[in-house]
Amino acid sequence: MTWWSEPATTLDRSAERAAAEHQSGLTKPPGSLGRLEEIAIKLAGMSGEIRPSVDPVRILVFAGDHGVAAAGVSAYPQSVTAQMVVNMARGGAAISVLAEALDASLELVVLGTVGEIAFEQLPAMVRLVGVGPSTRDFSQEPAMSSAELDACLTAGRAAVERARTEDGCRLVIGGEMGIGNSSAAAALACALLDHPAVALAGPGTGLDADGVTRKAAVIEQALQLHRPAISGPIEALRRLGGYEIAALTGAYLRAAQLGIPVLIDGFIATSAAFAATRILPGARDWMLFGHRSREPGHAVLLKALDAEPLLDLGLRLGEGSGAAAALPLLRLACTLHRKMASFTEAGVDDALC
Amino acid sequence: MTWWSEPATTLDRSAERAAAEHQSGLTKPPGSLGRLEEIAIKLAGMSGEIRPSVDPVRILVFAGDHGVAAAGVSAYPQSVTAQMVVNMARGGAAISVLAEALDASLELVVLGTVGEIAFEQLPAMVRLVGVGPSTRDFSQEPAMSSAELDACLTAGRAAVERARTEDGCRLVIGGEMGIGNSSAAAALACALLDHPAVALAGPGTGLDADGVTRKAAVIEQALQLHRPAISGPIEALRRLGGYEIAALTGAYLRAAQLGIPVLIDGFIATSAAFAATRILPGARDWMLFGHRSREPGHAVLLKALDAEPLLDLGLRLGEGSGAAAALPLLRLACTLHRKMASFTEAGVDDALC
Repeated sequence: MTWWSEPATTLDRSAERAAAEHQSGLTKPPGSLGRLEEIAIKLAGMSGEIRPSVDPVRILVFAGDHGVAAAGVSAYPQSVTAQMVVNMARGGAAISVLAEALDASLELVVLGTVGEIAFEQLPAMVRLVGVGPSTRDFSQEPAMSSAELDACLTAGRAAVERARTEDGCRLVIGGEMGIGNSSAAAALACALLDHPAVALAGPGTGLDADGVTRKAAVIEQALQLHRPAISGPIEALRRLGGYEIAALTGAYLRAAQLGIPVLIDGFIATSAAFAATRILPGARDWMLFGHRSREPGHAVLLKALDAEPLLDLGLRLGEGSGAAAALPLLRLACTLHRKMASFTEAGVDDALC
Repeated sequence: MTWWSEPATTLDRSAERAAAEHQSGLTKPPGSLGRLEEIAIKLAGMSGEIRPSVDPVRILVFAGDHGVAAAGVSAYPQSVTAQMVVNMARGGAAISVLAEALDASLELVVLGTVGEIAFEQLPAMVRLVGVGPSTRDFSQEPAMSSAELDACLTAGRAAVERARTEDGCRLVIGGEMGIGNSSAAAALACALLDHPAVALAGPGTGLDADGVTRKAAVIEQALQLHRPAISGPIEALRRLGGYEIAALTGAYLRAAQLGIPVLIDGFIATSAAFAATRILPGARDWMLFGHRSREPGHAVLLKALDAEPLLDLGLRLGEGSGAAAALPLLRLACTLHRKMASFTEAGVDDALC
């Protein structure tokens, strides 16, 4: 038995009920804080605390290159993956700015990039795992060997374990960086959902309509090649996924096993989350969804997961940025739940009917 | 000429263009931060600063009672208006918790309540203006005299002026408390839009379907009574509005004149904002919209204002809570815009096409 088959933690329904009762006595019309009420109650069930908190928060960004980039599926050159890791470490990327502004710790886990990643001194927040320079081109052959896939899943697992042991994190946000990874995410999702490539291929970082058509053709070719051999989600992940996607899947699986809520980002992260639920259905209980990406495939995955993200602001950047943008809502939900007065405490008259 | 006819400040289009150019050079695919990019650019045009900020922020909550409450249009007794003002001042209401969590100053301006508001010592954040105990029942007669309306508009104006002079505020959030005020907001909006009452009357704090039907009938009767005499938005506000709604209108008008962005809350606040744009069309330029209320009339007003709020979380509480919940997004938009590295600075390769 592999580690990812171990069961997910079960939710604490009694804490959830007690939190719902507490909410109903606060000085506002019942239900008038909408999803902010739901979040607080859900987090109570996850944490076992009637008045939950999500802090400390850690953001884990996994990076890896994709062999399929050679097929011309991205608007950006492959060199950008390594360059953006350096930019993230130096504080210049969107997710670095968000992590600092949100007082969340940020860890970058580099599974492997084609471009060189050179630091004079390796920052503590960067971990180089070194699975390989890149996955193989999945339109021609499986993206990873079993050993490579295992290394990626385990890297995600280890990152979540560090988040718990180093910081005592109560919430993890997963992000990714990898030129070509919207193709891998679409291919993986198509295999898991048995959908054609055109249903999930999108512009990614900015392909035009012709580019999307070419990308869909590359993915469809890969699906034809691999489908007969795909027996389940682990094999789909090995053949069509990416280093960083597999690491995210490993992270989501371990978070569910340890009972740590995860706030899911956009299309790429959701493809990894979907794979995690196919490997371990109980993982779904630990997932909150931050932002509805403009990438069209995201809607398909969200529907399959029965998920409604908190935000819909037209983001399509990845890195964990959409989830990070939603973090203040989780914090406000917890603070309102914890600090508002009850009708009794405040001496406010209740409803007439 | 009245003070509210003075022109609104014009936006700084040159700062807006420079901000858009700055955004396009940051290390992300163009447009991939969606509305977070738009917000930063819009705030640049408002502030005249290429890298804008919204801090310090002040939240102004206006409170007043409504004569129409006697017609049975609310799920809560009128006593709650005064009780909630006290709860807000003591930190137990949603908006108090939000203001503290968001590090925004909070001022409560009480125009007049039927219930007594007694503090051992009046907190500095509470101002008692004392227009009267309540508006008159607008289903029978005009809600306010001209002098009362003027006092309310001026109270809103003065609150915004204090926000600027005391704190140098760069953003104002307006909120309200007043049992019965969703009826006044609906009546006002119907008069301004020439819509029947059924198009805008909703459950408010929690009426059932029968209650909504009765409420719509009360509003429709009022519209029949007042329509022939309503010559413009000021007269609509006087006959159908409320103390706190008129104060909000005054606040939005003055903010536009002083060039201070306002983040608009839900249905009640938006009815006041809509009246402000009818009085002074340039006021629209200074409005950002925080949250789409579950109150059905809000959608009608948002459409008329061509506004798309940032959040849609099912809130229907008022107090300024929906706008406050959106404040972190404005801050993150500004921080990303200010702190992200450019492609040149970071040495990241740009798009292939």
